[in-house]
Amino acid sequence: MSFAKASGVVLRSESTYTGVIQQGWDFAGVANGGYLLTVAARAMAQEASGRDLVSITGYYTNPARSGPVTIPVKTVRAGTGFSTLRATMIGNDKPILTATAAFSSPTQTLGDNQIVHGAPPELPPPEECVRAVPSTTGPFPPPFTGKCQLLIHPDDARSLSGQRTGIASVRGWFRLLEGEAPDPLAVVLAADAFPPAVFNTNLPLRWVPTVELTVHIRDPQPRGWLKCQYTTRFVTGGMLEEDGEIWDEYGNLVAQSRQLALVPRKKH
Amino acid sequence: MSFAKASGVVLRSESTYTGVIQQGWDFAGVANGGYLLTVAARAMAQEASGRDLVSITGYYTNPARSGPVTIPVKTVRAGTGFSTLRATMIGNDKPILTATAAFSSPTQTLGDNQIVHGAPPELPPPEECVRAVPSTTGPFPPPFTGKCQLLIHPDDARSLSGQRTGIASVRGWFRLLEGEAPDPLAVVLAADAFPPAVFNTNLPLRWVPTVELTVHIRDPQPRGWLKCQYTTRFVTGGMLEEDGEIWDEYGNLVAQSRQLALVPRKKH
Repeated sequence: MSFAKASGVVLRSESTYTGVIQQGWDFAGVANGGYLLTVAARAMAQEASGRDLVSITGYYTNPARSGPVTIPVKTVRAGTGFSTLRATMIGNDKPILTATAAFSSPTQTLGDNQIVHGAPPELPPPEECVRAVPSTTGPFPPPFTGKCQLLIHPDDARSLSGQRTGIASVRGWFRLLEGEAPDPLAVVLAADAFPPAVFNTNLPLRWVPTVELTVHIRDPQPRGWLKCQYTTRFVTGGMLEEDGEIWDEYGNLVAQSRQLALVPRKKH
Repeated sequence: MSFAKASGVVLRSESTYTGVIQQGWDFAGVANGGYLLTVAARAMAQEASGRDLVSITGYYTNPARSGPVTIPVKTVRAGTGFSTLRATMIGNDKPILTATAAFSSPTQTLGDNQIVHGAPPELPPPEECVRAVPSTTGPFPPPFTGKCQLLIHPDDARSLSGQRTGIASVRGWFRLLEGEAPDPLAVVLAADAFPPAVFNTNLPLRWVPTVELTVHIRDPQPRGWLKCQYTTRFVTGGMLEEDGEIWDEYGNLVAQSRQLALVPRKKH
């Protein structure tokens, strides 16, 4: 099943959409947070038809398992330049997440690249990286990794086999399966697709529940393989941030992401 | 008028609060975005009584002038550990912003500081920094700077007098006026209080409209002067991010912030 289909939604009544959290997009039965956000994003994108996603934020309120979800969408403001929408995803009568997104008309986000202090991560070619595939013997890598192409820098991939660099960073290539073209929603998926950067530190290899995830789309037309880097600099007071940079293979910044998460813990 | 009072709200009917966007907390008549967010935050905090603010996000939908606002609040989930709330601020019959916030019970955010890769900005003592005060002859510094103590690193403050470092960074001390103690909402205020980092580059000194602002509170009990640093690394496609780090004077990380904004433009 393509990503577009797995995250697809249907308009059921005025401004209310339904979707299905598909099996296999999970870690130990809990659906991936980036994937969940793309389902809400698709409902908001459909409601804001013809607009480009610029920014999306999800606050996570309950872990979600596979099954049907309902997504009421509210347009906060539909402007000539920008539109802002909100959505809450409800499954099993519980709120799974509440999301906000800004969309723009294409003319609003034109402009030169005036300042770029940064560069894509240096990655060996995809065939020299380590592909994360679902484990048949334990929780890591999770089933979700079978739903996309995650090719991890060999230096950062040793956490997959129990060795760790000690540095809270993970770099790698991302692409959807079978040549499905990337779009801003695939970029949102990429933002939460890699093993947590802290899996390369001495923190436990457990569920890292996301409190909040924001993705800023800096290029509405990503192309080809995405080059991704995720870093955690602060683990304080039981919480951590993970910052992501997503570039296309031609050296353009595609997105920045940041999430606030809880230190790895046993699943509730 | 204290910050607590300027951002105060009153419960008017079930889960609906009112407040007043005060005069003087503006740039050229448009209320400061961080200040607006603190007013919404106070409504959500009151609704989630007894909880610590952990994360807050605002999406800005219309520029706001001084005057009364109404803030309907919705509790998305009230959990034993975390509560998530949403609020929309309405003034002059228009949505000004829509916000989401997560609050935690104090026991949820305990934990050691396990990883810290970073340090507070190096600042001269407050008395050797340059205080931003409202200009009597032009738009910069704006009236808002009179509502708090903003002491800018001398190297970064030359934009106030028309000279620029060329580096999209601004560092400085932040404190409320007259010894009003800092709290997480003051930290949210600090996150959008300084002159935009890009004012030290060759971009025009104009309004920098915020699309989205998120603040992660990493220490619920900030103390004393705050040491702040704001940086922009990417100005692409008409948009820019500004990342903030806020530390207390004892070397503890208090918050991280990020906003997505439009390149400086004439006020609509």
